[in-house]
Amino acid sequence: MRVAAIGLGSMGGGAARAMLAKGLVVTGCDPSENARAAFNAAGGQAVSRACDIPAGTEGVLVLTVNAAQARAAIFGPEGCAPRMGRGGVLVVSATMAPADARALAADAAAMGLLYLDAPVSGGAKAAAAGTMTVMASGAPEAFAAAQPILDAVGGSVWKLGDAPGLGATMKVVHQLLAGVHIAVAAEAMALGIKAGLDPHQVYGVVTGAAGNSWMFENRMAHVLAGDDTPLSAVNIFIKDLGLVDALARDASFPVPLAAQALQLFVAAAANGHGGKDDAFVIRAYQALTGIALPGEPGGGTTR
Amino acid sequence: MRVAAIGLGSMGGGAARAMLAKGLVVTGCDPSENARAAFNAAGGQAVSRACDIPAGTEGVLVLTVNAAQARAAIFGPEGCAPRMGRGGVLVVSATMAPADARALAADAAAMGLLYLDAPVSGGAKAAAAGTMTVMASGAPEAFAAAQPILDAVGGSVWKLGDAPGLGATMKVVHQLLAGVHIAVAAEAMALGIKAGLDPHQVYGVVTGAAGNSWMFENRMAHVLAGDDTPLSAVNIFIKDLGLVDALARDASFPVPLAAQALQLFVAAAANGHGGKDDAFVIRAYQALTGIALPGEPGGGTTR
Repeated sequence: MRVAAIGLGSMGGGAARAMLAKGLVVTGCDPSENARAAFNAAGGQAVSRACDIPAGTEGVLVLTVNAAQARAAIFGPEGCAPRMGRGGVLVVSATMAPADARALAADAAAMGLLYLDAPVSGGAKAAAAGTMTVMASGAPEAFAAAQPILDAVGGSVWKLGDAPGLGATMKVVHQLLAGVHIAVAAEAMALGIKAGLDPHQVYGVVTGAAGNSWMFENRMAHVLAGDDTPLSAVNIFIKDLGLVDALARDASFPVPLAAQALQLFVAAAANGHGGKDDAFVIRAYQALTGIALPGEPGGGTTR
Repeated sequence: MRVAAIGLGSMGGGAARAMLAKGLVVTGCDPSENARAAFNAAGGQAVSRACDIPAGTEGVLVLTVNAAQARAAIFGPEGCAPRMGRGGVLVVSATMAPADARALAADAAAMGLLYLDAPVSGGAKAAAAGTMTVMASGAPEAFAAAQPILDAVGGSVWKLGDAPGLGATMKVVHQLLAGVHIAVAAEAMALGIKAGLDPHQVYGVVTGAAGNSWMFENRMAHVLAGDDTPLSAVNIFIKDLGLVDALARDASFPVPLAAQALQLFVAAAANGHGGKDDAFVIRAYQALTGIALPGEPGGGTTR
């Protein structure tokens, strides 16, 4: 199958390499020269504009940051849609509002293209290994056409229904949990520090007990290491919890915990940490209380 | 070692049986006739009042519901303290405020007794298997004297410092995470239902992805099964998040997410669900939005 991968960031680049590894013919597309060079070095073929993918490309995996970028890459003046044959399939994995997914799917149908609303989870490691969780909805024909792509990038592929938008909804619900879990991990760790506990012991106790979450275990390790290099940034969760807020209001559904968590990420960004690792939402609590984190004066050692 | 277990509920009864299994001579104590009968059937010796444990008991594990019960069982008119020899050790595992743990430890010291502030986590299954997580603080002599009890009931035993109160603090921090994780699991599941997702698919996606928590996986299974039999009740988290609130205020530390979660458990209790399984904090969201849960008319099947 002749495919393209639009967006060669930490997720898209990994997924593109996973497709190469499964024997698909993959053109990668990214405006970043570094991203293109890395994909070429991995044996792929990279272009800078989506309109430069080969004519007759049968499937396109779109892993941009948001809906606006996805729309530009597909239907914009330099978009990929004209390079795809009728019956080609778009697998759109950017996190976006369900309404955006439905609008993209309708525009694709008008051009004779199949559309899979297919957000993903799992992080850069799962992307590179081809073991992402794919939360997909769309017509059976779209699933059938996308099968080689789904097989290459997904460890588990969920079929959530025929209607585009259900995949996006599932991802937004997932991000509600992810965002609140990161924020409450920070709240608990920061309270523990303030109340006199050793943060490394807090981590050890929690990760071995019923209070654990995937995010606590993954993200609080960054805090203990004093490493705020952004694998996923505070600003990403301002975006994603903003999508939660919008979806919930659209569905007439109050989300008090997600709304509160969003405010904490906003506070971290207000203090200059929007581009830092999302675990450093803990700096919102630091700003409120003056606690010292591991690696800071009075905050003990990093590990 | 001649020991006693005060409180033979789901946690204390299991821990008492785990001590029996390790060859300790165990007297169990509980006002409930059923709990005593179950412990006698397991090969133990049960009494109804703490003052009826054998004279010369060397160690007492206290697993009551709260600090007031623990104090009554140890120092009350029918308490166990007079039955313990000097140098005997109290292992107090009830969840309580750190200040209560410090006060109990001081009173024990005044009577020549050793004291271990030793809350636990893991649920009834881990209690019965002797694999609880024990979050303990106290003097080295107290740890040494309590070793056979800790070996019998703990899968991992954390030594959090010499000062009574640190164990209680760690448990309260842990319950912050546990309580918020249950409430946000309910928020996400309820939003998914309102937005048109299949709750069984939501469960499948989340438990295989980065949005998972121990509590989501454990408690949302109760919601999908439509089973509100209380393993741990909504009212327990009103108590425990109340301890979080008190500890945090005492430490001058704001806990916006825990405070919000507490309000949701209170709302569930206000609607008559205080005695139901804590996962049914989801009925607070149901009261706000009118969603149907699995097993209810329009809510789909249970599983």
